[in-house]
Amino acid sequence: MNYSMVRYVLLRLLGVMGALMVLPLVVALIYSEYDSAVCFFILAVVLALTGYLGTLKKPSNTVMFAREGFAITAVAWIFMSLVGAIPFVVTGTIPNYIDACFETVSGFTTTGGSILTAVDGMEKSVQFWRTFTHWIGGMGVLVFLIAVVPMADGYSMHLMRAESPGPVVGKIVPKVKDTAKILYMIYLAITVLEIICLKLTGISLYEAVTLTFSTVGTGGFAVTNSGIGGYSTLTQAVITLFMALCGVNFTVYYFLIQRKPKEAFAIDEVKFYFGTLLISSILISINVYRAGAVEGYGQSFHHSLFAVTSIMTTTGFGTLDFDKWPEFSRVLLMGLALVGACAGSTGGGFKFSRALIVIRNARNELNFLVHPKAVKRVYMDGHVVEGTTVKSVSAYLCLYVVTMLASFLLVSLDNFDFQTTITAVIATLNNIGPGLGMVGPMGNYSEFSYLSKIVLMFDMLAGRLELLPIFIVIKPKTWKR
Amino acid sequence: MNYSMVRYVLLRLLGVMGALMVLPLVVALIYSEYDSAVCFFILAVVLALTGYLGTLKKPSNTVMFAREGFAITAVAWIFMSLVGAIPFVVTGTIPNYIDACFETVSGFTTTGGSILTAVDGMEKSVQFWRTFTHWIGGMGVLVFLIAVVPMADGYSMHLMRAESPGPVVGKIVPKVKDTAKILYMIYLAITVLEIICLKLTGISLYEAVTLTFSTVGTGGFAVTNSGIGGYSTLTQAVITLFMALCGVNFTVYYFLIQRKPKEAFAIDEVKFYFGTLLISSILISINVYRAGAVEGYGQSFHHSLFAVTSIMTTTGFGTLDFDKWPEFSRVLLMGLALVGACAGSTGGGFKFSRALIVIRNARNELNFLVHPKAVKRVYMDGHVVEGTTVKSVSAYLCLYVVTMLASFLLVSLDNFDFQTTITAVIATLNNIGPGLGMVGPMGNYSEFSYLSKIVLMFDMLAGRLELLPIFIVIKPKTWKR
Repeated sequence: MNYSMVRYVLLRLLGVMGALMVLPLVVALIYSEYDSAVCFFILAVVLALTGYLGTLKKPSNTVMFAREGFAITAVAWIFMSLVGAIPFVVTGTIPNYIDACFETVSGFTTTGGSILTAVDGMEKSVQFWRTFTHWIGGMGVLVFLIAVVPMADGYSMHLMRAESPGPVVGKIVPKVKDTAKILYMIYLAITVLEIICLKLTGISLYEAVTLTFSTVGTGGFAVTNSGIGGYSTLTQAVITLFMALCGVNFTVYYFLIQRKPKEAFAIDEVKFYFGTLLISSILISINVYRAGAVEGYGQSFHHSLFAVTSIMTTTGFGTLDFDKWPEFSRVLLMGLALVGACAGSTGGGFKFSRALIVIRNARNELNFLVHPKAVKRVYMDGHVVEGTTVKSVSAYLCLYVVTMLASFLLVSLDNFDFQTTITAVIATLNNIGPGLGMVGPMGNYSEFSYLSKIVLMFDMLAGRLELLPIFIVIKPKTWKR
Repeated sequence: MNYSMVRYVLLRLLGVMGALMVLPLVVALIYSEYDSAVCFFILAVVLALTGYLGTLKKPSNTVMFAREGFAITAVAWIFMSLVGAIPFVVTGTIPNYIDACFETVSGFTTTGGSILTAVDGMEKSVQFWRTFTHWIGGMGVLVFLIAVVPMADGYSMHLMRAESPGPVVGKIVPKVKDTAKILYMIYLAITVLEIICLKLTGISLYEAVTLTFSTVGTGGFAVTNSGIGGYSTLTQAVITLFMALCGVNFTVYYFLIQRKPKEAFAIDEVKFYFGTLLISSILISINVYRAGAVEGYGQSFHHSLFAVTSIMTTTGFGTLDFDKWPEFSRVLLMGLALVGACAGSTGGGFKFSRALIVIRNARNELNFLVHPKAVKRVYMDGHVVEGTTVKSVSAYLCLYVVTMLASFLLVSLDNFDFQTTITAVIATLNNIGPGLGMVGPMGNYSEFSYLSKIVLMFDMLAGRLELLPIFIVIKPKTWKR
């Protein structure tokens, strides 16, 4: 393990965190929240200075392998959460540090599950910071670092691979640095576009900005107690659209910018993503309409589409309390939660591309039994998927199931009911936010014990970083020099 | 598809079924249940005659590939269940044919989940048949056929592979026929031994025989409404012991008979099986004791050990209602239900050997990221597991998860609560019997709709035959000539 490189990247990250604190500082000044302003100011100065001074001396050894990449990423995210929790504690919004960490981890990992029972009275600047963590975590802070900090391409690829979701990380252009820049430009463009669209539906600029952060990061923190339920149907529809767009593999947008619509629409997982989105919404709207859970067919479809998009993209916003919907809708939503969004999006979950790879591989194995001469290649987007990728995705499925089972067991020690225990883990490991029962759309995570909160924080980080970095960081072998 | 061979094996099976009906016929005569006696007599004669006359002409083409083996096995089990349900309907025990089929599938697949709300008043001969289905299904009727019917070794291997549980089917002796014979001799020996032991604890011979059928087949049908709760602690302890023994890979017993204890105890999955059994029992006994769910430490351990053994071996007997235990115990039991017993035993579930293979493979993939020069071989019992086995086990995990998710969704249409929906599927797909909530140890499956019952029957068969035969049989391609 190259410790000097770990230290260097972490200090760089501190500097970036300091710079990011300037935004909530500005919000605090606008809304005359001077106590919070002082807090954000001190944090910004201390972090920026530490980051700047600490990285004046370049590391002697800049060699970085996959091991370093994964470990740095995991440590960076833990570190970031510990620092990001400070404003919540200092401003008195969340006096307990572990609770503040839970909220911050939930923010950065774009989970959106909260330990707060009410958000209405919160200071504007703190609430801004809370939703801003979603935006930072959505595309990833290390991807940002790669885009702005000079670093050898071969090395930054390891960081990129560890932080970006999906079974294979494609560089959309030959250079990693340029790829990171392009991704952030697309991300920024979608953000600005949503802020404008939301503002046009008649809500305040502050709400438009904070809701946009929560949407494009596929996070789910709302800024009022009623979630998204209090907004007009038009505002809800705009949010639905942008949630759906942010669950898509960002390569699609790159192809579209490059005027290659054919390539954009040839991506298998995107087709399955939209197909599943539509079919599930129709099924749930029929189910809730027939059960009388929602009045009128139009409204049933509107709220079903919102709920399905919210869960599939792992955002976790709620217009209605789907915990009160019939069992079929509840189980289907939790099933979609497990699959999640597309690889290369800001969403979480197992990812459609992984699901396609393991299912196609299983289908091949079945065919092989019937026709022993059948070829066992797995295809995606018209190309053969490498055997090593299929193997690592299969291993991923195993790690995913094992993590889930172990978490069920630890959380069950709190002795809450079955659906709360099971769906709290599903909702955190897949970075959704709401589950069923006590952690339903109108519930929260405040009642859990510290042990469960720590387990669920682990799950959120493991889910966002897609297991491997977190597992590598807890392996003692990783830390050998 | 070699249809003449399919027809031939199925008719042979009919003959065997006819012969097996003689036992309940004898029981009916002993207990003077003459109506039932007539029913079993007619069935025995018709089945035996059809089987005998139909197989006088040998099939012209006896070539059989894996495809035929899997398809024949799946069709045979469906066929067997349809025929086995007749006594329940004709005797009026279960007038509805679909319910009778559910009970029979549950019997043959050694699930033990019932649609009956009470079993106390049932005729002795019918109850005998009900538990006898567990015994027949435990080791497998095709394995029995292989042992007694002359068939080319290469062909019968395909049947053996399709019906025997586990990722790799080991012939314990070079000839498949001899392997099948040895397995049935061991099975018979354990059966006789348990009947004697149970009789010695002071229960009636009838109860000793029927409970033994349910234990050694790891089935779980009881003969009284109170399940195993009404028996003495000694009787319960004997049942615990024999459940545990029948969840073990039968190769262990062959090695022991051959006086090769070293080989017997070198089997990895057996070590993990007993280790998990013991640790889980201790954890649950602490949990139920501290929660005050069971009085006294000795009784807590006794009932925890019983419950863990019953679930891990996928038997499903109950002494106490574990549905009322604290959440940790309930979740742990359901987790154990997913893993199940050892390969090559009479138990169901994902199997310990498969779990070991996928977990070791995942560990290798993790090591590979840290040390790119690490060797990616998976070891079991000190030998390298073939790459094709690892691949097919990974594919199995995927099919298993997909089957479970699809079943959750279909069963959720009945709109029962979350834990009932989820655990009904877990309890049938893994051939356990009881789950939580409505299908808990004191509940039953009677309230489900026909759709759910058919889905759960599919799950029971898919679980017993380990997915592949059932998936192959529903593929249209399989049936091409």
